[in-house]
Amino acid sequence: MTDTTFLRENERIDDLEINGFRIIQNPFSFCFGMDSVLLSDFISIKPAAKVLDLGTGTGIIPLLLAAKGKGKEWTGLEIQPEMAEMAERSVRLNDIQDRCHIIQGDLRTVRENFSPASFDAVTSNPPYMKEGSGLRNPQDTKYIARHEVTATLEDVVSAAAYLLKTRGSFSMVHRPSRLAEIIEVLCRYNLEPKRMRLVQPTSDKPANMVLIEAVKEAGHEMKVLPTLVVYGKDGEYTKEILEIYGKI
Amino acid sequence: MTDTTFLRENERIDDLEINGFRIIQNPFSFCFGMDSVLLSDFISIKPAAKVLDLGTGTGIIPLLLAAKGKGKEWTGLEIQPEMAEMAERSVRLNDIQDRCHIIQGDLRTVRENFSPASFDAVTSNPPYMKEGSGLRNPQDTKYIARHEVTATLEDVVSAAAYLLKTRGSFSMVHRPSRLAEIIEVLCRYNLEPKRMRLVQPTSDKPANMVLIEAVKEAGHEMKVLPTLVVYGKDGEYTKEILEIYGKI
Repeated sequence: MTDTTFLRENERIDDLEINGFRIIQNPFSFCFGMDSVLLSDFISIKPAAKVLDLGTGTGIIPLLLAAKGKGKEWTGLEIQPEMAEMAERSVRLNDIQDRCHIIQGDLRTVRENFSPASFDAVTSNPPYMKEGSGLRNPQDTKYIARHEVTATLEDVVSAAAYLLKTRGSFSMVHRPSRLAEIIEVLCRYNLEPKRMRLVQPTSDKPANMVLIEAVKEAGHEMKVLPTLVVYGKDGEYTKEILEIYGKI
Repeated sequence: MTDTTFLRENERIDDLEINGFRIIQNPFSFCFGMDSVLLSDFISIKPAAKVLDLGTGTGIIPLLLAAKGKGKEWTGLEIQPEMAEMAERSVRLNDIQDRCHIIQGDLRTVRENFSPASFDAVTSNPPYMKEGSGLRNPQDTKYIARHEVTATLEDVVSAAAYLLKTRGSFSMVHRPSRLAEIIEVLCRYNLEPKRMRLVQPTSDKPANMVLIEAVKEAGHEMKVLPTLVVYGKDGEYTKEILEIYGKI
């Protein structure tokens, strides 16, 4: 079977440049960005962990974690049928269907479809924007991926809290403008924020991403990592970004 | 009256290097650090504001704000009588007793001694450490200034929430390790975190201070400022720190 049998109209295969892993993407719907790469780098999970990714989209997070050997078994939950189907094809393209599963479903109904406390780690690169902000086309795949149409921040956190075992970790990337809300909601669901990292485009520009890890039923005390800066004064990627991308 | 009439044993007068303002300090009890300087720089208050500083110690925050013209009237509340008395002498040393008042009292009993919603801005550089951590000598001035002996984080936030008018701002400097707790408590008291800045010793070391501003009864949406780095790769203060200290 050649790679092209995996592809539909407008789709392409991109190399993740980690252990030969690849992903199917459709540039007309949604392609992964630096946020997913930085989240997969930030995530700290044990090799034996059973991981669930909420709103997995193209499956980029489970694929990156599998490529990096972070965890043992990955499940991606995605509400949009065509995205879930494409992610499923990426799983088969990488021949990891024995340990990576894509499930088409709604994260707001995890209580009906999953057992409580059934995962060691939950991850998410959720929609950043409130519903109604930006140009509105709720049928559009990109709009759904970026806006809280099918799930709010609280829906995502609530699902994570239900699915995680005690001391299980929830890792997420989001916008710094929503940091207070994120921490408030995590605490309310007994997911204690334990590790955080801001990401700034340059050393003098405000952060445009925040990486955060919360641990279920953990005590207070948070570790704030050094702010990650993407571009140096020369306009090139910083050493740390190149390291994360495996270019060093 | 010469300056020396203001001084007791072991005390000295330090120049704040802003508009001729000076402060009395006792190196054997507690001297202000960079945290107070960065907080007074971070604080954004209207020229007409009536400001209260909770746990004012030597009065450094009201003095720096008065020196910078941030606000119109400042009150410093301090539980330790000898500290309050020393702060009061600093106020007179600077001849601002008409607009700056030091009150000796307990921030846990503000409801008995102040009217609700009576300030436009509340500030605090509270004790960072939980009671019981570090070497214990609860009678020691330094210990009380650094540990939550006489007031917990929640006591400080609760006092601020009571004292502030609607849309009034509460600004604080604290340890990043307590950021989640800080945000959770602020939200619980309806003080919405609106502005935050991490302070790192160097670009590759984790932050050791966080500056945060919350606004009473404001909506969600937080502004995260670029992380402030204290020392450059050359080991010297960065340009921004020199600017804050008025050396540029």
